[in-house]
Amino acid sequence: MESYDELKHFLINGFIDYRSEVTVDCAIFGYQDGNLQILLAKNKIITMWCLPGGYVKKAENLEEAASRITLQRTGIPNLFLKQFKAFGDAKRNTTPAFDEKKFIELTKIKKETYSWLNVPTISIGFYAITNPVTAVPKADFLSSECRWFPVSKLPKLGFDHKLMVQEALFTMRMHLYHFPIGKNLLPEMFTLKEIKLFYEAMSGKELNVTNFPNKLISLGIIVKTNEKKSIGGHRSPTYYTFNEKQYSKALKEGLVLV
Amino acid sequence: MESYDELKHFLINGFIDYRSEVTVDCAIFGYQDGNLQILLAKNKIITMWCLPGGYVKKAENLEEAASRITLQRTGIPNLFLKQFKAFGDAKRNTTPAFDEKKFIELTKIKKETYSWLNVPTISIGFYAITNPVTAVPKADFLSSECRWFPVSKLPKLGFDHKLMVQEALFTMRMHLYHFPIGKNLLPEMFTLKEIKLFYEAMSGKELNVTNFPNKLISLGIIVKTNEKKSIGGHRSPTYYTFNEKQYSKALKEGLVLV
Repeated sequence: MESYDELKHFLINGFIDYRSEVTVDCAIFGYQDGNLQILLAKNKIITMWCLPGGYVKKAENLEEAASRITLQRTGIPNLFLKQFKAFGDAKRNTTPAFDEKKFIELTKIKKETYSWLNVPTISIGFYAITNPVTAVPKADFLSSECRWFPVSKLPKLGFDHKLMVQEALFTMRMHLYHFPIGKNLLPEMFTLKEIKLFYEAMSGKELNVTNFPNKLISLGIIVKTNEKKSIGGHRSPTYYTFNEKQYSKALKEGLVLV
Repeated sequence: MESYDELKHFLINGFIDYRSEVTVDCAIFGYQDGNLQILLAKNKIITMWCLPGGYVKKAENLEEAASRITLQRTGIPNLFLKQFKAFGDAKRNTTPAFDEKKFIELTKIKKETYSWLNVPTISIGFYAITNPVTAVPKADFLSSECRWFPVSKLPKLGFDHKLMVQEALFTMRMHLYHFPIGKNLLPEMFTLKEIKLFYEAMSGKELNVTNFPNKLISLGIIVKTNEKKSIGGHRSPTYYTFNEKQYSKALKEGLVLV
């Protein structure tokens, strides 16, 4: 049995630093070679896979909480983060989804010590996109394991996290049309075929993404380089790269693709 | 001086029915004849114009709270409602933005009686769109007045509601591309010119909306009728109408315009 020390400490003293009624949950998407993945953590208490998340500290805002949690879970600071939805049903998180008796037996703590957690929580969902290669998934004291799963093949999720993943995908896919993505996910230089494959994976092949690369070119967000990819034969596709300035501007102001 | 009875009752007994830390704020947009308006309520306590909003009841979910509040303020049930963002800064709503001493003098209540409200709130922003003609703006016990303002000419807003209006507009305008709108806002039958004017007003003329009507036709969401508008002269523009079934489907599943 692994140590429950940190968890015990949180249950007993967490009320000092954390807001008992506000959490964030993070859908961290990973893109690599045409595949869309999502980072899940196995919750120690309910022993089910969940989105990484946690309580919001009294001293931080929602974005800071999401930033802290995504950094802890991936090792990558300053991930692109966007809210996708708030979840706050009346009965949310009020019934223990775990064997409380067994848990108290294991941790030797009294139920009263964590009564501060005994209120319905409202959770703010954030999504992030990163490159799984640069990420170092790390479990926290509430989880026994943390790793990537293909979005197309998810395990059964705890709490209301199945719905959360659906909502995160819906919003992320809507945002494909309004924010540039891909920097840090695609290599420094990429072909049009590669960026098209990227958009196909992000959209779950449910969207018509054929025009995305052309629109990005016409907006000056991706630009031609002088390099060509050597694939043998006569046809060597040209490499493109992101225009840093146009990319940042569009990320801030939004845009309309397609 | 108007009566503060209902307000007093809320301050003293509100903790029984309401969650002290969760509110909703509603950006209720009104469209009429090419003009985009928003409904504001003058908060009695801070005596500034604000978005209509209120605390969430313990027994309801966020959408139900937004639905209750928009119904109370407009008289219209089942308004189209979408979340646009959650606002939860650490210091949000903890400093009284009003003359507490004067207020206590007026209401004759003790400060301790409303200490349950003395916690930072997280507010979930919802936007709605309605027809100002069918709405009956109504102030509640927390507001002295409730009326429409042109979005282009807003008064100074209280709390963080200026930011909220900006975020509501941003999301509503992004949603123009992904959800059909216009039923109950346009007349039963309308010309292409009228629906284009509608999209222009909704988008604040910041978007290129020329293709919206054509795309709606190609998706079968608006359809030609056999009627023509009589405007004198030879050119009588054809009337269009929404296809109920396609409209509802697109509202549920989302779409991509432009």
